[in-house]
Amino acid sequence: MIGGDLKVARRGLMFILSSPSGAGKTTLAGRILEKEDQMVLSVSVTTRERRAGEVHGKDYFFVSEEEFFRMRDNSELLEWANVFGNHYGTPRSLVEETLRQGKDVLFDIDWQGAQQLDEVAGEDVVKVFILPPSREELEARLRRRAQDSEEVVQKRMAKADAEMSHWAEYDYVIVNYQLDESEELLRSILFGERLKRRRQIGLASIVKEMTGDG
Amino acid sequence: MIGGDLKVARRGLMFILSSPSGAGKTTLAGRILEKEDQMVLSVSVTTRERRAGEVHGKDYFFVSEEEFFRMRDNSELLEWANVFGNHYGTPRSLVEETLRQGKDVLFDIDWQGAQQLDEVAGEDVVKVFILPPSREELEARLRRRAQDSEEVVQKRMAKADAEMSHWAEYDYVIVNYQLDESEELLRSILFGERLKRRRQIGLASIVKEMTGDG
Repeated sequence: MIGGDLKVARRGLMFILSSPSGAGKTTLAGRILEKEDQMVLSVSVTTRERRAGEVHGKDYFFVSEEEFFRMRDNSELLEWANVFGNHYGTPRSLVEETLRQGKDVLFDIDWQGAQQLDEVAGEDVVKVFILPPSREELEARLRRRAQDSEEVVQKRMAKADAEMSHWAEYDYVIVNYQLDESEELLRSILFGERLKRRRQIGLASIVKEMTGDG
Repeated sequence: MIGGDLKVARRGLMFILSSPSGAGKTTLAGRILEKEDQMVLSVSVTTRERRAGEVHGKDYFFVSEEEFFRMRDNSELLEWANVFGNHYGTPRSLVEETLRQGKDVLFDIDWQGAQQLDEVAGEDVVKVFILPPSREELEARLRRRAQDSEEVVQKRMAKADAEMSHWAEYDYVIVNYQLDESEELLRSILFGERLKRRRQIGLASIVKEMTGDG
């Protein structure tokens, strides 16, 4: 697949997607992952309750508070945060191993996680923020999906506002007017970033051979 | 066309392609321009002799030394250089006007020009270096195209080495193994760069409306 299989050895990148819940981020992440064998999803650990339909090891690693704090204190988490009283964190080992193999890791996380990952791994990080097309559309989507009370919907809208207030900390922004188009744009960002000179660690030796300096 | 027509107001970018002569840069530039109505080619002024088939205003603006120095001294050139005793320069007005309109300008220039444009317009500049797949292939292409003497071919190979020595000053590098693939990769870089937050000058007001701060 074009862009997915560079012939030059490269270091993987950390592809971070953030957005308010309801903007299409998780759908987009799924579409990208489906077509990309050079990319894996970072699965977070969390202490929150498993919801109906969620699979341990796929949606999250569901762990006890005790286990969460053990991992955190043992430097097994790249970042962590507390959201609505629940703990979330990114296991370190999968990320580091994947990058070394020249593959990418996709993160479906909020601005707190994005900020922390940027701090600990800035060179490898590419941050993309997905905006909904309008406030009305965002609220409509939250109502459609939620079996929740009005109070929970309003709480989510407030959280969406808080999340969107961080858009300017991101490298790229996509306004998700239309999913197919947004998917293509997201893929352009990914393929472009893979071509950054500093990620293509095999270039120096190629040029050396080319110019007869080798 | 996807990626070519963002709905958010944006500032144009300066898309710089450099490569040793014979690496496929001019072919790639032509293919990108053909499909992009959001991009124009920067046509340089030069004091060198017009070659057979070259068109004034399309390949170059052919000017006298006197006119060239007048433009330079009148700040009408963004950058200029002397190559093999001939002067080359980039007219400023087309570039500035195009960027303001939210369109991009493509530059088919060497490392000297790229360096100077980066100095005067760094924020707007995206630099891409095209490498040939191998030294043998590069030399073969230079021989095929040249009606020139062996001496001229060797001079061009030396110039190619000098040009390639600057690859590490570029943001992106494409090794041109296959033209169709390289064209797609180049387009990914372009579409990705258009989505950089800081180029999308219309975002702030969109977010303001979205979060009800407006």
